[in-house]
Amino acid sequence: MTVEILNTGTELLLGEVLNTHAAWFGKQLFPLGLRISRQTTVPDGEAIRQALSETFGRADIVLVTGGLGPTTDDITREAVSELLGLKLEMDSRIKEGIEALLAARGFTLRERMLRQCMVPEGATILPNDHGTAPGLYIPPVAGSPHLFLFPGPPRELQPMFEAAALPIIRSICGGIPARECRVYRIVGLGESAVEEMIGLRLSSQPDLEVGYCARPNEVDLRLIGPRDMLDEVEPAVLETIGDHLVSSKGEQLEEWVVDRLLELGLTVSTAESCTGGLLASRLTNIPGASGCFLRGYVTYANEAKISDLDVSGELIRNHGAVSDQVACAMAEGCLRKAGTDFALSLTGIAGPEGGTDAKPVGTVFIALAIKGHATTSSRSVFSRDRETFKQLATQAALDMLRRELLRSEKNHRSPSL
Amino acid sequence: MTVEILNTGTELLLGEVLNTHAAWFGKQLFPLGLRISRQTTVPDGEAIRQALSETFGRADIVLVTGGLGPTTDDITREAVSELLGLKLEMDSRIKEGIEALLAARGFTLRERMLRQCMVPEGATILPNDHGTAPGLYIPPVAGSPHLFLFPGPPRELQPMFEAAALPIIRSICGGIPARECRVYRIVGLGESAVEEMIGLRLSSQPDLEVGYCARPNEVDLRLIGPRDMLDEVEPAVLETIGDHLVSSKGEQLEEWVVDRLLELGLTVSTAESCTGGLLASRLTNIPGASGCFLRGYVTYANEAKISDLDVSGELIRNHGAVSDQVACAMAEGCLRKAGTDFALSLTGIAGPEGGTDAKPVGTVFIALAIKGHATTSSRSVFSRDRETFKQLATQAALDMLRRELLRSEKNHRSPSL
Repeated sequence: MTVEILNTGTELLLGEVLNTHAAWFGKQLFPLGLRISRQTTVPDGEAIRQALSETFGRADIVLVTGGLGPTTDDITREAVSELLGLKLEMDSRIKEGIEALLAARGFTLRERMLRQCMVPEGATILPNDHGTAPGLYIPPVAGSPHLFLFPGPPRELQPMFEAAALPIIRSICGGIPARECRVYRIVGLGESAVEEMIGLRLSSQPDLEVGYCARPNEVDLRLIGPRDMLDEVEPAVLETIGDHLVSSKGEQLEEWVVDRLLELGLTVSTAESCTGGLLASRLTNIPGASGCFLRGYVTYANEAKISDLDVSGELIRNHGAVSDQVACAMAEGCLRKAGTDFALSLTGIAGPEGGTDAKPVGTVFIALAIKGHATTSSRSVFSRDRETFKQLATQAALDMLRRELLRSEKNHRSPSL
Repeated sequence: MTVEILNTGTELLLGEVLNTHAAWFGKQLFPLGLRISRQTTVPDGEAIRQALSETFGRADIVLVTGGLGPTTDDITREAVSELLGLKLEMDSRIKEGIEALLAARGFTLRERMLRQCMVPEGATILPNDHGTAPGLYIPPVAGSPHLFLFPGPPRELQPMFEAAALPIIRSICGGIPARECRVYRIVGLGESAVEEMIGLRLSSQPDLEVGYCARPNEVDLRLIGPRDMLDEVEPAVLETIGDHLVSSKGEQLEEWVVDRLLELGLTVSTAESCTGGLLASRLTNIPGASGCFLRGYVTYANEAKISDLDVSGELIRNHGAVSDQVACAMAEGCLRKAGTDFALSLTGIAGPEGGTDAKPVGTVFIALAIKGHATTSSRSVFSRDRETFKQLATQAALDMLRRELLRSEKNHRSPSL
């Protein structure tokens, strides 16, 4: 069974909006055993007719996004009914729904908004709880694919897809998928190292699909195959990756750290210079973070390092604000002030200005203070643009804490003991 | 002149990697007067042949990404030479380059990596400064389009495109684009409000293309047309949008704020609870932020609000940590501690837990303390997922400071006077 995605939207091709539809649909469909065989984007307007008719010979299911709005270049609905020879009929329930939504916002129904109430005969309406245009499901007509029409905005499309379209797709494709997908999230190893260490060996298995996905300081190793084969190779995968493995359940690094801290009843605080609050922000993205993250300091100016973290002015003068000594003093000051079990600190040069020969742009010192134990620290150079630098540096800091949590677990000691 | 994008990559259709190519190419090509007429993604392997041959009848320029690597499912190079009847020849300079790169990483050249050194006759090599596979430009053969082949990873593709492909594309399309694109970034108004206020009126101009792009608490109004027409309508656009306009130069809100603070020689500090450091992180994403952003506090726990910001424990007990009173006390404490001209604070309920009838999930109090002036504050409810909530709340806080900067400029007073 083949699935195609057809996206319509001039803004997607002008580069103002990132097309997230293919990735999102891909993730939704895989657990049903469905793979997307092609994805196409065309501008608003007439181009949709041609692109849509091309999919008819190729696909069993076509998911169309965009072109359902009220303006004149929104013609998806009309193109479909013409191509399939289906009459458009006014649906009074949609009209009432739009009138109610507009009234709540203080608008009245404009004539051209009525286009959104037109439905091809035989179509099923997919209700829109987050906007005016409903989605539509049109079953096959004389060999045409199963057609699903969705509004373009993800915040309207996604809940609609899950609530109304997925059940229909499930009943179309039936059965249980024969293949599973496992993703091993790895930190501290590059993509090519992962391939050398384990990927090449796995690729020789005939029925196993091996893929990689690299992000800043993070690689996903992806295996697709029959469940028993995945079970068979898993021990070798886990042994090879060792403590570079963050998760085989798709967790983010910050999620793993927060969940483990909550589980162990331990707390953390942060003292950031060059990463400017991103480390605290990543930790607090995780629901429940308030149970383990107590406070953070963004000590951008030296004066803030001195007054908020009790770093000595002499230390800064002697070694520079970007130094191992200052990183350690920041972490230790933070631990004392916050009274947490752990404190992470970062000080570095995000760039583009401020680098020297000894400490080029991208240099960062990271320290981890641990209640009742010695402070550990590291030096790295991530010479990239400012935002990638912040991502890489916070990733390294989170990984430092992750490794400490693994170690203390192994040694059956908690940092407070 | 029509341009098509063809992306190959199974990971793009499985949903593990977001396809950013179309958006990026769109932005690069528009200033040359070129628009993308279609974008297609297919999985790695055989599907590229079919999709590529389909573009031959339709497009003048085709930009292909992916499928240039060493593995067996990377067949873009071979598919192109077969379709065009061009022999593949080994290029010794590419081989030497790959050998040098591998040696630096401690690897030796594997047999199958040699595929990356094969070049169709008549092709121009686009050097890859960030990886092994070079790009290729293949001029038209018997009516075929201008073909550009790029490696998939954006960090390899993007510098290659700018350095080696853009000059070729410029010489192909020649001339100066007749149409310009202007983007007005608006905060504090919804998409439909912008359309009602100004968009509908502009849409009636026959040669003017009007578009919208909505993000959390931000709308871009996009106008494409001849320069003189854009100049003609601009005064009405600016008057209608008024102080909701952040920028007509594509600046982000945090960029506008940081640049204006630097210009005025003023400083800011932050005190965040529910947004957990995101406000500080957004400000410090902007190069030069250290000149105006001195420090930030992430006072997640009540104890932190008390000890770091001198908020009184009684105030928290009487009004709750999420209250207008505590927001104002946080901002004022932060201003005193940091000695800045402005201090922004946020306290709220990011969810998913912690809401009450009086203060539902999404409630946030924002305060702005101003040196020598009264503190201002606001209450909002952004009932969305945790990360969108943080984005919306920090957007509102930045906008509060932006409006204050506009006001003080208008009144010829600086907050320090």
